[in-house]
Amino acid sequence: MNTQPHSEAFLREAAELLGPKGLTREDDVLLPWLTDWRGRYSGRAIGLASPASTYEVSKLVKLCAKHAVPIVPQGGNSGMAGGATPDESGDALLLSLRRMDAIRSCDAEAGQCVCEAGVILQTLHDAADAVDMRFPLTLGGKGSATIGGLVSTNAGGTQVLRHGTMRAQVLGIEAVLADGGIFDGLTALKKDNRGFDLKQLLIGSEGTLGIITAATLRILPATRARATAWVGLASIQDARSLLRYADRAIGDALEGFEVVPDHCLDSVLNHLPDARAPLAGRHAWNALIECAGDDADGATLIEQLENVLAGAMESDLLEDAVIASNETQSEAFWNLRDSISAAERALGPAMQHDISVPVEQMPEFIEASISQVEDAFPGTRGVAFGHLGDGNVHFHVLAPSGAVSGAWEDSEGKRISSHVHDLVTQWGGSISAEHGIGQMKIEELGRLGDPVSLSIMRNVKSALDPQGLLNPGKLVPPNNLINDA
Amino acid sequence: MNTQPHSEAFLREAAELLGPKGLTREDDVLLPWLTDWRGRYSGRAIGLASPASTYEVSKLVKLCAKHAVPIVPQGGNSGMAGGATPDESGDALLLSLRRMDAIRSCDAEAGQCVCEAGVILQTLHDAADAVDMRFPLTLGGKGSATIGGLVSTNAGGTQVLRHGTMRAQVLGIEAVLADGGIFDGLTALKKDNRGFDLKQLLIGSEGTLGIITAATLRILPATRARATAWVGLASIQDARSLLRYADRAIGDALEGFEVVPDHCLDSVLNHLPDARAPLAGRHAWNALIECAGDDADGATLIEQLENVLAGAMESDLLEDAVIASNETQSEAFWNLRDSISAAERALGPAMQHDISVPVEQMPEFIEASISQVEDAFPGTRGVAFGHLGDGNVHFHVLAPSGAVSGAWEDSEGKRISSHVHDLVTQWGGSISAEHGIGQMKIEELGRLGDPVSLSIMRNVKSALDPQGLLNPGKLVPPNNLINDA
Repeated sequence: MNTQPHSEAFLREAAELLGPKGLTREDDVLLPWLTDWRGRYSGRAIGLASPASTYEVSKLVKLCAKHAVPIVPQGGNSGMAGGATPDESGDALLLSLRRMDAIRSCDAEAGQCVCEAGVILQTLHDAADAVDMRFPLTLGGKGSATIGGLVSTNAGGTQVLRHGTMRAQVLGIEAVLADGGIFDGLTALKKDNRGFDLKQLLIGSEGTLGIITAATLRILPATRARATAWVGLASIQDARSLLRYADRAIGDALEGFEVVPDHCLDSVLNHLPDARAPLAGRHAWNALIECAGDDADGATLIEQLENVLAGAMESDLLEDAVIASNETQSEAFWNLRDSISAAERALGPAMQHDISVPVEQMPEFIEASISQVEDAFPGTRGVAFGHLGDGNVHFHVLAPSGAVSGAWEDSEGKRISSHVHDLVTQWGGSISAEHGIGQMKIEELGRLGDPVSLSIMRNVKSALDPQGLLNPGKLVPPNNLINDA
Repeated sequence: MNTQPHSEAFLREAAELLGPKGLTREDDVLLPWLTDWRGRYSGRAIGLASPASTYEVSKLVKLCAKHAVPIVPQGGNSGMAGGATPDESGDALLLSLRRMDAIRSCDAEAGQCVCEAGVILQTLHDAADAVDMRFPLTLGGKGSATIGGLVSTNAGGTQVLRHGTMRAQVLGIEAVLADGGIFDGLTALKKDNRGFDLKQLLIGSEGTLGIITAATLRILPATRARATAWVGLASIQDARSLLRYADRAIGDALEGFEVVPDHCLDSVLNHLPDARAPLAGRHAWNALIECAGDDADGATLIEQLENVLAGAMESDLLEDAVIASNETQSEAFWNLRDSISAAERALGPAMQHDISVPVEQMPEFIEASISQVEDAFPGTRGVAFGHLGDGNVHFHVLAPSGAVSGAWEDSEGKRISSHVHDLVTQWGGSISAEHGIGQMKIEELGRLGDPVSLSIMRNVKSALDPQGLLNPGKLVPPNNLINDA
């Protein structure tokens, strides 16, 4: 704990403001929140503040500004890039939004929920369900990820193809700015041209421009039917052709298009004793296609998907296909897809990359990059799987057999990741598709980011947070990390 | 013309850079571009620059920065808020993007067009048509409005309900910043979390943060069928109920939901000698409903719309309805809607307001506001019509009979508009739904805008344009115009 005198004065005032529930310095309470959930980043903090209202956040931020105390906002601590973990100086205040967990309103007629930042994603799903609606974004961490964290990292997930990332769900935002001012943009207006869209600036800014305290989110009528297909393909190029074909034929009902190379399916089948391959034969690539619609029994939807697959087969776009005959089978298909990461981990150490390139170029990128990485790092194996429909794959580089976990990542990992990020950048892609930059990729963003963009980012950051107190060391590469600066 | 010595040096260098086609100071060439198309705003300029490439724009902006010459970017000069008209000082350079009119690519497979800023909207429509696709945004000025102008004002139109404003069509942007740096964000990535979304910041910034030189826009498969209905309603509340009902039942096929009060229909029928009322009886309100879909003959779509209207009639949501039996009739329905402004103008002077409130509150807002305005300004008549589905109506206040055009607007207009804007703000709405702020509403934005938002806007503006040379006097209210500053 940091016990500098100025901190003590700050802590006294903060304790007075927040009350006993709102501020703690006890090690055992603090500890779990000082390390990210994957155990990759650890830090220290002057204390853990848990304000109960936007008003308290505003007052607290003013106090931090007065005492020049850095703030690290945190939601469910389920981020992928260390964006909610403080540094090791112990100077920063950890600001948890978890106590602000009210769903202020959930209006099926208007198709809107107003959630405070600490509402857990699963809780929102349940609230929407209860009024026969749904919130159209989901991801693995839904049991802990909070709305504030999801908005401030512009989270993705498995329904982005149809419904977009978190940005597309946000109709309004309330946030506390660096000077403690409250930005009140919760009212959802479909058309509003009163100047710069500050809501958009805050979404995905990882707490570096303001602290999101609430958001107005869109909810949609509950989906009554779904149809899921598992398709065997000769190549990743055929997967792209099938995606285009299905997109044209099914349109908005197409909710997911995931690709799985044979190697990944193999790993999963070895890893899960009860899993079965959906198709009789094996194929170089597989696609998992999900459609969702409103007809009550799903018959129309399934017929539509059948027609698409039959048409694609006639055009030689696919080798084999099966449509899940019931919900259980559909879940089994998704389970294969969702188990890839765990199955690959069981094979040994690997470097994982969350990257995107234009959808059109993804097949060529995957083929070229896997071969280049495997050449540059003999014995490694490159695999790419995931959200082809979003131009976003998880690009894993598996260690040579016999590599020692921990040691291999330390000795080879950074070089491999740099190599992958170089390739992505050459292809016009993004080194962070959906996981954000946080502290994990800040150096790489400085090295590879467009200097013009980085310069605007720095200018905007200085303009909105002149003291640099909001989540320092995250997202915005400082001058000394920028390549051309 | 401004002939200060420093301007002469600047003009020499600019002429050298741009060549004879790229710079003119001839009055007869300049004149049409110094007044907005509605003749409300006029100004002067040091010259008219027409660069032919992004490179030339970049060089020119650097030159302007060096000589501290303000820049007024201009597309088709079809804006509604004087945003592209210079002030009367004559210090500014008018920068036309019209020469940059190449469609760099139009890729039906990828669903993307890359357009330079000067491409006219109609030209983009034609280019998309040519590859059996469509660009899903249209508006009255499509024959002159340019992509650069549409993006920088976040234009709306009649298909926003389904497809969103211009913001939703933009996949990527190229822009020249205040220091001449080129922001290269044209590559369309569906997922990209590498920091602040600068593209979003530039969209709708009316040339005050950067000059948009090109944009990557989404195009969609051409619509093969449409169904249009004209519906008679007892009240605007019933219109809202019908909108919700139709939205649930038709979903994504619902493309437009416009409302027309009886008074407007009456004006149009008097104004257009050949026009006929679509329904036998008269109704307090009318709704124009448009659906679009992919089935080749439109039969399914029409059946769907018929079912919706039959169901709504059973629930007493509507009084009468007719579905257009062919394209000609559909056009006739739309012609009634599109002729309202002209018909109202023929009645005498009026103050027009482009406003939005939350869709749910629109009926109550319309009723309350019309009665308040008519009370406050005896003899006036308030009418509201337009995009109910977007929460955006055109709120016109017609002068008392006998009022003299010109004189009435001068004596009463500003007070009436302030009154309307006060009401909109009290209802949590926007004083600019789709037309932007420009110079027309900058005072009102300063008076009524949220001081926290305005302060962020000013900070961002200073950070990105420290010399204040980009479209000065537009969009961003200066300190002296801000209420609480």
